[in-house]
Amino acid sequence: MEIEMQIKALGERARHAARSLQTVTKAQKTEALRQMADALQKNSAEILAANQKDIEAAREKGTSEALMDRLALTEARITAMAEDMRQVALLPDPVGECIEEMHRPNGLLIKKVRVPMGVVAIIYESRPNVTADAASLCIKTANAVLLKGGSDAIHSNMAITKVLRAALAAAGLPEDAILLVESTDRAAATALMRLRGYVDVLIPRGSGRLIQNVVENATVPVIETGTGNCHVYIDKDADIDMGVSVIVNAKAQRPGVCNAAETLLVHADIAEAFLPAAYQALTAAGVALRGCERTQQIIAVSPAEEADYATEFLDYILAVKVVRDLQEALSHIAKYSTGHSEAIITENAEAAEMFLNGVDAAAVYHNASTRFTDGGMFGFGAEIGISTQKLHARGPMGLRELCTYQYRVHGNGQIR
Amino acid sequence: MEIEMQIKALGERARHAARSLQTVTKAQKTEALRQMADALQKNSAEILAANQKDIEAAREKGTSEALMDRLALTEARITAMAEDMRQVALLPDPVGECIEEMHRPNGLLIKKVRVPMGVVAIIYESRPNVTADAASLCIKTANAVLLKGGSDAIHSNMAITKVLRAALAAAGLPEDAILLVESTDRAAATALMRLRGYVDVLIPRGSGRLIQNVVENATVPVIETGTGNCHVYIDKDADIDMGVSVIVNAKAQRPGVCNAAETLLVHADIAEAFLPAAYQALTAAGVALRGCERTQQIIAVSPAEEADYATEFLDYILAVKVVRDLQEALSHIAKYSTGHSEAIITENAEAAEMFLNGVDAAAVYHNASTRFTDGGMFGFGAEIGISTQKLHARGPMGLRELCTYQYRVHGNGQIR
Repeated sequence: MEIEMQIKALGERARHAARSLQTVTKAQKTEALRQMADALQKNSAEILAANQKDIEAAREKGTSEALMDRLALTEARITAMAEDMRQVALLPDPVGECIEEMHRPNGLLIKKVRVPMGVVAIIYESRPNVTADAASLCIKTANAVLLKGGSDAIHSNMAITKVLRAALAAAGLPEDAILLVESTDRAAATALMRLRGYVDVLIPRGSGRLIQNVVENATVPVIETGTGNCHVYIDKDADIDMGVSVIVNAKAQRPGVCNAAETLLVHADIAEAFLPAAYQALTAAGVALRGCERTQQIIAVSPAEEADYATEFLDYILAVKVVRDLQEALSHIAKYSTGHSEAIITENAEAAEMFLNGVDAAAVYHNASTRFTDGGMFGFGAEIGISTQKLHARGPMGLRELCTYQYRVHGNGQIR
Repeated sequence: MEIEMQIKALGERARHAARSLQTVTKAQKTEALRQMADALQKNSAEILAANQKDIEAAREKGTSEALMDRLALTEARITAMAEDMRQVALLPDPVGECIEEMHRPNGLLIKKVRVPMGVVAIIYESRPNVTADAASLCIKTANAVLLKGGSDAIHSNMAITKVLRAALAAAGLPEDAILLVESTDRAAATALMRLRGYVDVLIPRGSGRLIQNVVENATVPVIETGTGNCHVYIDKDADIDMGVSVIVNAKAQRPGVCNAAETLLVHADIAEAFLPAAYQALTAAGVALRGCERTQQIIAVSPAEEADYATEFLDYILAVKVVRDLQEALSHIAKYSTGHSEAIITENAEAAEMFLNGVDAAAVYHNASTRFTDGGMFGFGAEIGISTQKLHARGPMGLRELCTYQYRVHGNGQIR
């Protein structure tokens, strides 16, 4: 109960800060972001010392090298965080944009205006750079942010938020616009998920388990992010070279991310021509293939089990299936897709159209790699995550997706 | 457990129907809506007979006359339902609209296209016309709909959905695009709230208790609707006649709806001039006032308690408070508002601007009644509800708000 009161008190402070931010100007936000970036670099020694504590604790716990690398900060990484913040400062500010204007017959003028969400909560795992990232995107959009990072990074996160809060105050903005939940108790995370009336949206960033936990327990509005069981479908009318190049890129350029491909679907009519070429290129890129029976007749791969098609490997492993036609490809995708990114490779415009209309995913590609589903690649300048739900935002979420809208109605005494 | 399996089976049928609807044309939808409307009228005897069963059951339970009236259907009400459906058929179809086009430096063309949400679930209370309403808005937007009405209206709802499903099939659309949860077991509603992977959005329509129950138990994305503790603030520079006319309209034109005003805030400098005029007009309209101490010094009203300011009366009762200035009005609204609709009456443009920027609600009004927060009044032609959350949709939700979007990316072999 005590932890719930603590979290509620944080919520009240965040809500109060959000209210002050409603009247902040674009220039004030830009200046605050610049000062926040400078402060990160100026106070890097303090941040690195705190990070060292986290690193040592992680080492004692026997944390894997990969996780240690995600946790570790260096002077260069802090500089990169500051540079990202300066980039965000330069991005177009969506707050206050008039999205639509409606003149009603009774003389009312209704403006639909983009406004801040209010209080954004983010629950994430070990990478401390998310702390700076999320804070800068929220300040840019005049939202207050309530951060709950992983316990592994608690000292780093405390140091970073301390520096950022001081910079906010120096720039004349409410320091409570950036708040960190310092308790590493699980009950603190649960209380945050249930902070109705204080949190306008909660964005979990991290493993499937974290997201599942949030979805199960949250009573505040949530945006689900990040699970990507993505497919590349090679149509019978595909350009074979293009198909090979795209599947190698989609699978192997960075296999650990959500927009990497996990299953290759190949039209039966092109399988004998396509699969040997793909096999050679994928194997050269270090990818292990698991294929259906028909695939195994054409190339030397280990058998795929049904479970493989449902798996987000996030690794140099690719499931392969030969399908009878486009319809079977669509059915397979409908069954296994997580609604993230799906691609068709074909020279046939009609097949492309059927695929784009028939796939229910955030991003659908014709003749391009699934790896482009990314805020930077879409031209958003920055992203807070990639939504795999359909409510509010789908795919990469940039600054606009951190806003809501408000109807502002101008009259001269109209009544009903 | 058995009920959960039943609801899951319904979810699978809805999901399957939603997939078929992805390729349906505008003309097919329009024709289906026309046939649905005709079918309602042609089968009115069957619907009225079913409604009679609900009426008799309600009478035996000793249901209040007001609730009985909400439940009762007549030939005229069925005709009105059919007419509404024909109106929806005529509305502009938002599905397939290209919202935005982005040309990327690497040659990718990214189109942001409006697409159906997929499966929409609606949990509502006794009014059977919601069944026809929700079905028509969902068919118009190519969504499958999973309906869970109140147990009081179960026979009416079964008859209406039977007629509508037959009309869908006759028009060549999947009849499972309209599905009714026939179990009146509470566990059925709970299972529907937790139908992850099958329900893309759940919209509760009804009492605060219903909405609270959904928010507490749902694991699927939810849009909260309908709670409106709305304020009208009379600024020191208000036109007194306009202020009186607006507060009478906002309170008394239809007190039982969510966009009706519940509290009147009056600037101290205008209170002595305004309150007597308002008192006379409000009293004449049958409104009972409860005022703060300062109000009681000016007009003969009973005292307001703190709890009155937090109450959505939905009745001919109005809380009144004299505030020192605009800032105190904003603080009061920030404390008690449910984020629905708030109005300022003033001839002072600067005060209006401060109010519109400073109030965090779906709709903010300058010199107009809060009663305009309504899909029809906003020109949306129809509405599925009024959102009081900030995620996805705010205020009146029309056809566009029943859609999501998809990024369609056209390339010629781009890789990262």
